Amino acid sequence: VGRCFRRGYPLARLTCKLIASYEVEVCERSALDLTNPAIAQLAKGRRSLIITTPTVHRLYGAALRRYLGAHSLDARVEVISAGEREKTIDSALRVCALAKKHELGRRDMLVAFGGGVCSDLVKLAAALVRRGIPYACLPTTLIGQVDAAVGLKGGVNYKSSKNYLGCFKAPLHVIVDPAFLATLPKRYLRCGMAEILKMALIRDADLFSQIESFGPLLIASGFSSPDEVARHVIGRSIALMMEELEPNIYEDRGLQRLVDFGHSFSPRMELSSGYRLQHGEAVAIDMALSSAVAVEFGLLRRGDYERIMAVFEALNLPTHDDVCTMDVLRAALSDSTKHRAGNLNLVVPIAIGTATFVVNREQVTDQALQLALRRLGREGLRGVAQRS
Amino acid sequence: VGRCFRRGYPLARLTCKLIASYEVEVCERSALDLTNPAIAQLAKGRRSLIITTPTVHRLYGAALRRYLGAHSLDARVEVISAGEREKTIDSALRVCALAKKHELGRRDMLVAFGGGVCSDLVKLAAALVRRGIPYACLPTTLIGQVDAAVGLKGGVNYKSSKNYLGCFKAPLHVIVDPAFLATLPKRYLRCGMAEILKMALIRDADLFSQIESFGPLLIASGFSSPDEVARHVIGRSIALMMEELEPNIYEDRGLQRLVDFGHSFSPRMELSSGYRLQHGEAVAIDMALSSAVAVEFGLLRRGDYERIMAVFEALNLPTHDDVCTMDVLRAALSDSTKHRAGNLNLVVPIAIGTATFVVNREQVTDQALQLALRRLGREGLRGVAQRS
Repeated sequence: VGRCFRRGYPLARLTCKLIASYEVEVCERSALDLTNPAIAQLAKGRRSLIITTPTVHRLYGAALRRYLGAHSLDARVEVISAGEREKTIDSALRVCALAKKHELGRRDMLVAFGGGVCSDLVKLAAALVRRGIPYACLPTTLIGQVDAAVGLKGGVNYKSSKNYLGCFKAPLHVIVDPAFLATLPKRYLRCGMAEILKMALIRDADLFSQIESFGPLLIASGFSSPDEVARHVIGRSIALMMEELEPNIYEDRGLQRLVDFGHSFSPRMELSSGYRLQHGEAVAIDMALSSAVAVEFGLLRRGDYERIMAVFEALNLPTHDDVCTMDVLRAALSDSTKHRAGNLNLVVPIAIGTATFVVNREQVTDQALQLALRRLGREGLRGVAQRS
Repeated sequence: VGRCFRRGYPLARLTCKLIASYEVEVCERSALDLTNPAIAQLAKGRRSLIITTPTVHRLYGAALRRYLGAHSLDARVEVISAGEREKTIDSALRVCALAKKHELGRRDMLVAFGGGVCSDLVKLAAALVRRGIPYACLPTTLIGQVDAAVGLKGGVNYKSSKNYLGCFKAPLHVIVDPAFLATLPKRYLRCGMAEILKMALIRDADLFSQIESFGPLLIASGFSSPDEVARHVIGRSIALMMEELEPNIYEDRGLQRLVDFGHSFSPRMELSSGYRLQHGEAVAIDMALSSAVAVEFGLLRRGDYERIMAVFEALNLPTHDDVCTMDVLRAALSDSTKHRAGNLNLVVPIAIGTATFVVNREQVTDQALQLALRRLGREGLRGVAQRS
């Protein structure tokens, strides 16, 4: 604390430093395999409250309890609903109430054992309970593994705004086990693949090539084949994400983030669809539209654009939805501009593996949007595939 | 992001650094004086939403609006109830809803213009809205000025636990204007004085002497006389608080905090009294009891104890309340032990200006508590004085 006089007033200055560090590990053996020590090492010496969802509990609850028992861990399990419609402050407070019911102390731990919404709710609850307690993630969906559980952001929807309330809160640890993907419906695998494709398009042409070659097989096999490719694609996507996040992890050093590719039009689309569109589907449509905008702006070559669209088609990712009216797209750009403190910062690819920002809202005219939509249309609009 | 292999798993590690810095300034001219640039400099170039309470609005609303108009600031004012009973997550969410209604962006600002509860609610709302937006404090009560608005902690009561939910969130700036204290009821001045006395007892014998000499006059005059002493006592208390907070501002480096003096028995006392006891009154009783415990343990000389009790009497601070049954005191110590991750860390004075910790819960036996209560009784128990 330094004291000084400025403008004639006495002042005391305080500098706050918060430093946290965590690892995301990609398991080679299943996390619930009794011989895998990862969860036990994390939970040893504290009480844990594991928050899971009905589906995950049905599929993996018994294996989880077997693991907890075999390692004599002081861990409780609670099941909550965690669909996009349950991504609310009330659900997060329900997790807080469970933390209280199980008397978690300040050094005890919440664990999110489920998909992206589950980890959002647990992050926010962990940020609030006792002004912050530790949490860990054991994501069971592909989007959870490569996106929701990797960073610090927890958010809930509030009064018709996506993620209006939330927190930045570093996890203690994240355990990514691709074996969980074997039971994930194909629709959700495609959603996760959209986020991997995002990382490839903004950062890594090699990863894009691997998706081109193996993407359909990975989805068809529930990421079980080819085994090493599945692990590599997931691990590489996570590592790229962490590289992008690290220099500006609290978003206090600027609001131009490449990882916002696919996240400018999509929040409003999700909302306007009444959450009929999955997050990953909306991200896919947003990426397709942003790529088409890039072509209109002369930023992306047609050849690259067509290569991107071919991957969308091969992965059966949507490129359009009826919700994408001009009104919705305009409102989405306004929302993003407000969220980014006055600049739109629309992320557009300029080549495969490289992207840039369209900074000003005014640059994306109605005409540019209409031309981009028409271009997408010429390539054959594709809506959301049937649930499978 | 480093990548490595441990236990045979691929890992990616990420380090998160959050650095914030803020000043607490003690005004020499009233903050609402049109010639004082402090608020204008803070609010310039962004939208502000000023959250205030009915009483503060009645007393200072017109002067505030005059100031905002004179400086052409883009600032809105909203009034909410902020008593201890309103220190709830619902109230914090009401502030979030107001932020949404007034379309605050990520670089816009919430301002707490009221007492301690007002700043708690604003801190928590600012932590949640858009995952964190800036906020500033303009505290109008003494406890707000020397305590609630100075640090990072915002908390709300939840399901019969004080401050069970909350956040750590650094303010942009804090403006302390002692002129507001002229209209503060004496009861609330005494409550603030209890927190100043806390800082004096754990850190500063000189500050204690000043309270001995001028405390009653400061309270009687609403901190207007002697003017320089008032400013010094407030400024010194704030600076000491900031010195104590800075090395462990997020409480992630240990849970032994001298500033917890008076805050081990008191949360449960407040709760058990149904919030009939003000926070500062419960803190006063806790400090008296902790001082008596220190005498029983042979840690504090009787002479120092009596000097402390004499100041309590001169300031008309309570040293006992009917709520202090053995059951309540035991429950309070259990709560504190849980909150401090297994150690009680009861702060007790060992001389005027110096304190230490009673680390283990077991050390504070029923017998020690009973002897301490009896000692307080021999000195003449004093309850909460009539509201004035």
